[in-house]
Amino acid sequence: MRSIAVDMDGVLADVYHQFIDMHLQETGKKLQLKALKGLSERAAFPFLEKHVNSKGFFINAPMVPDSRRVLELLHNQYRVFIVSAATEFPLSLSEKQAWLNRHFPFISWRQMVFCGSKEIIHTDIMIDDHFKNLDHFRGEGYLFTQPHNELSPAGKHKRVDSWRALEKLLL
Amino acid sequence: MRSIAVDMDGVLADVYHQFIDMHLQETGKKLQLKALKGLSERAAFPFLEKHVNSKGFFINAPMVPDSRRVLELLHNQYRVFIVSAATEFPLSLSEKQAWLNRHFPFISWRQMVFCGSKEIIHTDIMIDDHFKNLDHFRGEGYLFTQPHNELSPAGKHKRVDSWRALEKLLL
Repeated sequence: MRSIAVDMDGVLADVYHQFIDMHLQETGKKLQLKALKGLSERAAFPFLEKHVNSKGFFINAPMVPDSRRVLELLHNQYRVFIVSAATEFPLSLSEKQAWLNRHFPFISWRQMVFCGSKEIIHTDIMIDDHFKNLDHFRGEGYLFTQPHNELSPAGKHKRVDSWRALEKLLL
Repeated sequence: MRSIAVDMDGVLADVYHQFIDMHLQETGKKLQLKALKGLSERAAFPFLEKHVNSKGFFINAPMVPDSRRVLELLHNQYRVFIVSAATEFPLSLSEKQAWLNRHFPFISWRQMVFCGSKEIIHTDIMIDDHFKNLDHFRGEGYLFTQPHNELSPAGKHKRVDSWRALEKLLL
């Protein structure tokens, strides 16, 4: 059975919508997704540091469309691991685990990895929205489209725009 | 620079002394380390599940002798990652990170990995007290002696009894 490392933020958890909502609460201004293309998340969301260090940010994130259905199908055919950069934001650790338990109950604690860097993660496939995680990965990398990476060439990685696209490629 | 994955419980954190103290509080009986040789941790400590799920268990664990001094030396010569099985006990996540920050301030969040299984961890060297983590590891495995593994042959791994032994072998 092949192994897959699946990222959380920007792949399973729709953090852009969470950032946009929190930016609206903070400033009264509603940011438009299409205006954020090509901007890093820190450039797009000036209050990012404050928000990701706030209680409730991660536990209340919405899910990326189709992620639950397709991840469950993958889980039946691959050894799935959820690999999330979390130690930079210590509050996120328990919220991320609780969020996974709530939305992806078929994923057990054995399949969760919360880390800083992903450079020692070794699986056959990695699905991630950040080049910094995919670039030193030795397996097959899938770049999940998010506004911050949308204008960059995917390079050696396969770009996917949705979980439906992953479904077609991996199942 | 070669990479090392270093376990926490039983390698950096002296969980045996923590278990013995909590067993004493629970039962009034002081267990002797030498009587625990060859017993799994769950067999040695009947209240293990309760204790590892109690607030304060991990944050108050004492350090294994010489671990801080030798780990800092390793940190200067290797890419060090602390890789700890933690997601089985959700309360442990934030306590383990706080414990590392307190006792090993030279280890940054980038070097921390909290997981369930260690099967997708890929480094040159792994230091661990559990066969289940070392047996499917492809690099050089160092088995750190603890009562639960003391009567088992080390097999393909190198047995080390202390951080001083690691210092001699790795530095």
